[in-house]
Amino acid sequence: MTHQTKVAIVGASGYSGEELVRLLLQHPHAELAAVTSRQHAGKELGQVFRKFANHPRSQGLRFSEPKPELLAKAAEVVFLALPHGVAAEFAAPLIGLGCQVIDLSADFRLKSAAVYKEFYGQDHPAPELLERAVYGLPEAHRDEIEEASLIASPGCYPTSILLPVLPLLKAGLVKSGGIIADSLSGVSGAGRKVELDYLFGECHESARAYGIPKHRHLSEIEEQLSLAAGEPVVVQFTPHLIPIHRGILTTLYLEPARPAGQGKEMAALGEEIEGCFQAAYGAEPFVRLLDGKTLPDTKSVAGSNVIEIAWRLDGRTGRLIVLSAIDNITKGASGQAVQSMNILRGFPETAGLC
Amino acid sequence: MTHQTKVAIVGASGYSGEELVRLLLQHPHAELAAVTSRQHAGKELGQVFRKFANHPRSQGLRFSEPKPELLAKAAEVVFLALPHGVAAEFAAPLIGLGCQVIDLSADFRLKSAAVYKEFYGQDHPAPELLERAVYGLPEAHRDEIEEASLIASPGCYPTSILLPVLPLLKAGLVKSGGIIADSLSGVSGAGRKVELDYLFGECHESARAYGIPKHRHLSEIEEQLSLAAGEPVVVQFTPHLIPIHRGILTTLYLEPARPAGQGKEMAALGEEIEGCFQAAYGAEPFVRLLDGKTLPDTKSVAGSNVIEIAWRLDGRTGRLIVLSAIDNITKGASGQAVQSMNILRGFPETAGLC
Amino acid sequence: MTHQTKVAIVGASGYSGEELVRLLLQHPHAELAAVTSRQHAGKELGQVFRKFANHPRSQGLRFSEPKPELLAKAAEVVFLALPHGVAAEFAAPLIGLGCQVIDLSADFRLKSAAVYKEFYGQDHPAPELLERAVYGLPEAHRDEIEEASLIASPGCYPTSILLPVLPLLKAGLVKSGGIIADSLSGVSGAGRKVELDYLFGECHESARAYGIPKHRHLSEIEEQLSLAAGEPVVVQFTPHLIPIHRGILTTLYLEPARPAGQGKEMAALGEEIEGCFQAAYGAEPFVRLLDGKTLPDTKSVAGSNVIEIAWRLDGRTGRLIVLSAIDNITKGASGQAVQSMNILRGFPETAGLC
Amino acid sequence: MTHQTKVAIVGASGYSGEELVRLLLQHPHAELAAVTSRQHAGKELGQVFRKFANHPRSQGLRFSEPKPELLAKAAEVVFLALPHGVAAEFAAPLIGLGCQVIDLSADFRLKSAAVYKEFYGQDHPAPELLERAVYGLPEAHRDEIEEASLIASPGCYPTSILLPVLPLLKAGLVKSGGIIADSLSGVSGAGRKVELDYLFGECHESARAYGIPKHRHLSEIEEQLSLAAGEPVVVQFTPHLIPIHRGILTTLYLEPARPAGQGKEMAALGEEIEGCFQAAYGAEPFVRLLDGKTLPDTKSVAGSNVIEIAWRLDGRTGRLIVLSAIDNITKGASGQAVQSMNILRGFPETAGLC
Repeated sequence: MTHQTKVAIVGASGYSGEELVRLLLQHPHAELAAVTSRQHAGKELGQVFRKFANHPRSQGLRFSEPKPELLAKAAEVVFLALPHGVAAEFAAPLIGLGCQVIDLSADFRLKSAAVYKEFYGQDHPAPELLERAVYGLPEAHRDEIEEASLIASPGCYPTSILLPVLPLLKAGLVKSGGIIADSLSGVSGAGRKVELDYLFGECHESARAYGIPKHRHLSEIEEQLSLAAGEPVVVQFTPHLIPIHRGILTTLYLEPARPAGQGKEMAALGEEIEGCFQAAYGAEPFVRLLDGKTLPDTKSVAGSNVIEIAWRLDGRTGRLIVLSAIDNITKGASGQAVQSMNILRGFPETAGLC
Repeated sequence: MTHQTKVAIVGASGYSGEELVRLLLQHPHAELAAVTSRQHAGKELGQVFRKFANHPRSQGLRFSEPKPELLAKAAEVVFLALPHGVAAEFAAPLIGLGCQVIDLSADFRLKSAAVYKEFYGQDHPAPELLERAVYGLPEAHRDEIEEASLIASPGCYPTSILLPVLPLLKAGLVKSGGIIADSLSGVSGAGRKVELDYLFGECHESARAYGIPKHRHLSEIEEQLSLAAGEPVVVQFTPHLIPIHRGILTTLYLEPARPAGQGKEMAALGEEIEGCFQAAYGAEPFVRLLDGKTLPDTKSVAGSNVIEIAWRLDGRTGRLIVLSAIDNITKGASGQAVQSMNILRGFPETAGLC
Repeated sequence: MTHQTKVAIVGASGYSGEELVRLLLQHPHAELAAVTSRQHAGKELGQVFRKFANHPRSQGLRFSEPKPELLAKAAEVVFLALPHGVAAEFAAPLIGLGCQVIDLSADFRLKSAAVYKEFYGQDHPAPELLERAVYGLPEAHRDEIEEASLIASPGCYPTSILLPVLPLLKAGLVKSGGIIADSLSGVSGAGRKVELDYLFGECHESARAYGIPKHRHLSEIEEQLSLAAGEPVVVQFTPHLIPIHRGILTTLYLEPARPAGQGKEMAALGEEIEGCFQAAYGAEPFVRLLDGKTLPDTKSVAGSNVIEIAWRLDGRTGRLIVLSAIDNITKGASGQAVQSMNILRGFPETAGLC
Repeated sequence: MTHQTKVAIVGASGYSGEELVRLLLQHPHAELAAVTSRQHAGKELGQVFRKFANHPRSQGLRFSEPKPELLAKAAEVVFLALPHGVAAEFAAPLIGLGCQVIDLSADFRLKSAAVYKEFYGQDHPAPELLERAVYGLPEAHRDEIEEASLIASPGCYPTSILLPVLPLLKAGLVKSGGIIADSLSGVSGAGRKVELDYLFGECHESARAYGIPKHRHLSEIEEQLSLAAGEPVVVQFTPHLIPIHRGILTTLYLEPARPAGQGKEMAALGEEIEGCFQAAYGAEPFVRLLDGKTLPDTKSVAGSNVIEIAWRLDGRTGRLIVLSAIDNITKGASGQAVQSMNILRGFPETAGLC
């Protein structure tokens, strides 16, 4: 067998950390060398997550206290599955010690410490690293990821919104104004948080919006769209919580750059849109462009790193509706982070993800 | 006890019919005199719906074949819980025989037989009755319901959309153009249909849009909004299916008629909006206007005839976001139909619904 | 309207308390005069439980601190929806002040303070009241409930087990040895407890046993069965948690007192069993004896005070299988408590419960 | 890469067939050469099951009509995921043409055509093959599977019952009489059947027993237990349906062969039981023996080929309670079938299953 890259996960007790464990245990080119968790330090991996107990590659793995020096000795690549604010405290020393860091928190997704403060309500803990960080959306930033030392893996909602919108915006097919993103998220999106709102009895039979009109993820959504559009983009974003465990379904309302029209005119615009998506994603292993009869479904992407995308032009309103579905824990978090690692380390991009 | 109005339900085997049975069995001024179902004819009510078997007022009730003459003898008010197309075939003879008819299907919700044909794909079975029918949305058409002989009870999606939008449109606070309604529905919205799409295994962990961009309910939504606006209104409507049994959550994206502005200007507009809702619904028993900290939740209206409404002005985008939650089977169907009956028969409007 | 009995609920913030509110707000002969909750003191009822905000009879109701003197002034009947241990501290002063107390906790369900200590791990806080308390299972203890000043409303699992077994045991149709009760409970059975185990993400797609082999409810199950059998009864009881919100399904494995046999012999035994159930429950408003083709389903009793019971003789094993379904919050807790109140106060037993 | 075994799936449209596709697409030593389905013949695999559309190894795979000659040309190993009765019609010609057949239906699980007729209500379609078939429970019949040409993969319930009971029975630690198996199954256990009972609205919030007291799976459960015990074993079996998609949880009530006793005596028996399980399964890759604090949970085995087993001696009743959890579609069907293929073809037993 070829050389295995040694990897570590810091903060492996939440849903994203658990998913990283799952993906890295089955990865052909990575060896999970360390997992940390303050809460579980000293326990075997299989004791905390029984479902990994029988995995041959989990044998002997124990949770440890998160210590940068030990992590840097054990691993070449370190995944941070920590709350924002805390992640940055680990990133700086780990990079200093020569590790490549893939951060799943929000700490390095923004270019601006001021916007960070506006949306996250605290000073950025390591602003000097912001410039160095690469936004880890492989379909948009593959080249930069290849060269990165610090990858900021995108948020789940942003992934479901940016992948459908970016190519349209870059191609000038839709206006940068008036974008609306209406998203439905599974409860795991809140993390393994022990709060009343996430009890079974409170989520079951419940559908509700939350965090409107200024959810934190707007900051990275708008920054990435603005970069693509070459002008400031303001987005209307409404997240909802629904009783599924995994998955995000996003419905986007966009204005075509030129009138959609009717009949042949509309058909021509449709061909351009389809052509734009095909050019952007036709060869992407983790983008599934649906045909005109099918619509995205969270069920079809559960446990996978794929995003489903479909679009419809509405001749009655002139709008372009684009829909996407991802698994928030996989493509929306840990799967995408592993995809970035594959690019960074020169592995086949789909390694461990099919 | 006062005189009990005798009522009948035609087509009582689906979710709406079952809910009508539930509500009418507990109604203080109505006596459920007949329930029909071709499929169950001859069986006792409690045999088909065990949950009613112990109800004292269900004793002796048997499903019968739906025959207008017998129904007209048994009941003064007849509820039709039938598929569209079929409902109209019963409405005509029943009205001829002197019954008051409350139809839960789509057959009499539109004023125009042509629009009916456009959206339902068939000629209207009784176009001569369209003019006579009253759109049974009590909060909007109470006076007409009082005098009606044929009430067309609104669809579930339309109820969740019209109640929040109508007062704003009538007050001129929002533009009639550019309205977007994004709705999430429980699986019961599809009725008790034995199709692959509605199996537990296909709905569980699934969130998906369907029927876009031209869902049938658009016809009545647009007609009612156009009447209120005094001009044609075109709506963008995206229904989604999520794994709850009962409930619709609708998120509406509206453009204020004048710019939302910032600071005091926005606060002033906010006061007008709140004032508009309070004027329209402050005294309505079945409308719950939420305060600024709370957002609608399908869980909070499950099994009840209440609609929850909340709104937010977004200073960043200038949009007005309005959200609503109803139980699609109660306020979205059978509860609202009973509310109409209460008005029609001069009962307290909340009778049997609290 | 006739005289309304004034009632109070102490500890109205959990699922049982909330259900008591629901049932008492719609009760024709009770007036909900006070609701207490340390956590919510000062808030309006409709603020904490939005679903009651529109109820005409909830207007003006506010949570207060639980103070026996004030409660005794406000109410004739006081429901205690408190944790065990705490309930007893309220029961004593309230009874001293002349209230009738219906306790939904485990504090007064046992005759013996020693057994209480064995199963609940603490000294009984008010042993002098144990003798006075009546076990509030109406179908078994109706006469005593009529005269009670302190009613100990049964646990949810015990209700689902005792109602099916008691008549068979009293009639000598089954052996008192070897009884097995295998129960499935909805998550609300754990109360509104903010613990990791009850998060949506942990319950969804999960089925698991817990608390075996000596769950606390065994104490009251065995005490009641022993009283009925006239000899000590030991029961095997396995509770499971499944992802429904409300409901308990219990499967009982019993040994007929005489061999079940085959053919006519078995048919004769079957007739005796059916006769036994009919004699015990044929006239009970809240017991639904299912025919030989139907099996209990938690869905059929959700939100209702009914228990469904069915039985099968197995000619292959000689065993009698009895199954029951209840709503754990209604018949298993708050509905049954209201049923007891109806008996105690001389109301029709079904008042407010149909 | 080593030689890939060519495999085919006949009847790949149900849940088991879909799971076989998932497992075989990721299998390191198998190549999925053909998938058949009358209903989907001609369609691409990724068209019917979108979730496989992006898999590199699914490209070009199309559903075909099931024709033994073509299958035998395309594949060395053929999996039958067909209804009982139909499976046997394919097994015979395929074996004649030299294929190794792994049948997931009930057709070859029994030794006796008479018992088949008793439980399945029809004559066995290929009784001459019964003797040749090997019961494909690897942990019990590994040696026979190695040499088999026809493997009858066990039912889901039987797997969850046999694995815990067989070693105890063989070791003489439990009596062969009086065994009770109480099982909870996810809805996928019913297959992708479009029937009212399996609609979301009918399963949601529902827990119910069915098929008692003589479920078809009893035939293979009793046959296997009888073989192990060396005497006829009769089992009490109660299957229940609960609202999870995947998973079976089984609770077994067993009588120790000698009295459980108390204190040291009970501890000694406990050690023997633990020793028995460790001897039988300590080295099995797909059996997870839980320690004394943990109980099986369907969530912990979802999507995996592992069975979780735990046991408790009850000093109060003298019984031994054993619990198990499996994923009914994986260890209970398709995963186990792939495990058998691995044994049959000399692959590492865990290949493609971790």
